[in-house]
Amino acid sequence: MKKIKRVALVGGTHGNELTGIYLVKKFQKTPNLIKRFSFESSTILANPKAFEIGKRYVDTDLNRCFRRQDLLNLNLSSYESQRAKVIYQTFSSIGTQPADVILDLHSTTANMGLTIILGSKHRFNLELAAYLVSINPRVKILYSVTKYQDSPYLDSIAEYSCTVEVGPVAQGILDAALFNQTEELIQTILDYIEAYNQGTPPQSTSTLTFYETSKTVDFPRNELGEIQAMIHPRLQFQDYQPLHPGDPIFLTFDGEEIIYKGDSTVYPVFINEAAYYEKGVAMCITQMKQEVL
Amino acid sequence: MKKIKRVALVGGTHGNELTGIYLVKKFQKTPNLIKRFSFESSTILANPKAFEIGKRYVDTDLNRCFRRQDLLNLNLSSYESQRAKVIYQTFSSIGTQPADVILDLHSTTANMGLTIILGSKHRFNLELAAYLVSINPRVKILYSVTKYQDSPYLDSIAEYSCTVEVGPVAQGILDAALFNQTEELIQTILDYIEAYNQGTPPQSTSTLTFYETSKTVDFPRNELGEIQAMIHPRLQFQDYQPLHPGDPIFLTFDGEEIIYKGDSTVYPVFINEAAYYEKGVAMCITQMKQEVL
Repeated sequence: MKKIKRVALVGGTHGNELTGIYLVKKFQKTPNLIKRFSFESSTILANPKAFEIGKRYVDTDLNRCFRRQDLLNLNLSSYESQRAKVIYQTFSSIGTQPADVILDLHSTTANMGLTIILGSKHRFNLELAAYLVSINPRVKILYSVTKYQDSPYLDSIAEYSCTVEVGPVAQGILDAALFNQTEELIQTILDYIEAYNQGTPPQSTSTLTFYETSKTVDFPRNELGEIQAMIHPRLQFQDYQPLHPGDPIFLTFDGEEIIYKGDSTVYPVFINEAAYYEKGVAMCITQMKQEVL
Repeated sequence: MKKIKRVALVGGTHGNELTGIYLVKKFQKTPNLIKRFSFESSTILANPKAFEIGKRYVDTDLNRCFRRQDLLNLNLSSYESQRAKVIYQTFSSIGTQPADVILDLHSTTANMGLTIILGSKHRFNLELAAYLVSINPRVKILYSVTKYQDSPYLDSIAEYSCTVEVGPVAQGILDAALFNQTEELIQTILDYIEAYNQGTPPQSTSTLTFYETSKTVDFPRNELGEIQAMIHPRLQFQDYQPLHPGDPIFLTFDGEEIIYKGDSTVYPVFINEAAYYEKGVAMCITQMKQEVL
């Protein structure tokens, strides 16, 4: 069993997701909160300029800047591609403060509760996830097969990692209840890692329920790309709930219902996430799965 | 009694408040929806460039660009100061399509329900407000004394006007339920004006309850201007609910409660509005008042 030597806590990968930003600021002011005996804890505000201007990003989405060829490409000059290189040169295995675990703290306008997006199905990740679910029913585990292929996230630069997505919360505001729940989740993760390093990780259920992304669904649009319908009121805030074939999924501006035409029950997530309108994503479709540990 | 000859429906004064924008787009596509016998209906997307880039504004807040001296100042060159001049030259009393009533459609991250911010206490405004409240309990009436002094809103360029503020909804997303409720509210207003023009406005209660803004309260900040506390979880989403002296109002990042120290019960609104962080406003304090009609 390989010990964890460093955990990096990342906030503000997106400059208008304040929960992670103010948590990292708090930890930077009071480092004792994230100090443990068996490993180092580091913190970073990933995109300070985007935070300053109150936007998701300055030039481009930082969380899509971690393709290996891009990190090596000296010709990329956007602010975020430079920040990606700095973060890589700090926390990757060849960095100045190599991190075994990265916790990248995000928030979302979707009702994602306390979501852990797993970076891989490594046994460490799965057991941590199972433990978190077992002690807090608001925790949901999301796994995206494509996450590490087309456009790897920031947390892909460490071996064990997860993106933490909490919501619903509007961009640009702090929700105190969600802030406290997220902080508690981080403390639980750090305590787990401490116990793991000492060879006594707390045990949990032997079966992990998780949600695996299979595809994304865009809003209905016209030939100019303009949205022609909204998330159906019955689907709004219903992340992780079953969506059956025939259930309404969109409502046009004229009041017409558009139904889900798939051939099996699915579990949509990131329903109506503000930042995904420009990405052509109204929601992500997942399947509920189980992994025996 | 002066008849209403034109009503102007304004959407997208703020580019990331999608409810009003997509309502105006709908009305532009199907003008019959807002057509009435006794008056003209006009529509405008007030800040199309801000909508394009998905931001509140390009250079400056358009809804603070309507001071008379600024509208006459040819040296002001921001995008929004130019848009303000165009809107003024269209819908003001000296414009090409003078509007007697302006309905300016906004949304907010605060739990404002269906709020009507009155532009003045003109009898027409008060009677319309009383009627709207009497048929829909989600409608709240807000009146700001300073609104027409320091920085008049867009709707100040017409005699009878209101700013419609609906929420809670995150910036950059559409909430179908709220969209439908806002459309219904607009239809009710247009029907009311039609009846008013015909001399038979529907009657309502003889006493109007409204909320009058007395001051704003900022977040606790340090010497660098950084926020030191969040809206207290017990106050979040409690717009228009009574706040008593001694009730918690903020929660510091360290978990300390900050209490409201006023000497009487007040009714906060715009609690945790995302766009107001940069304006130094955590909430607006109002008094509940009544006006006998």
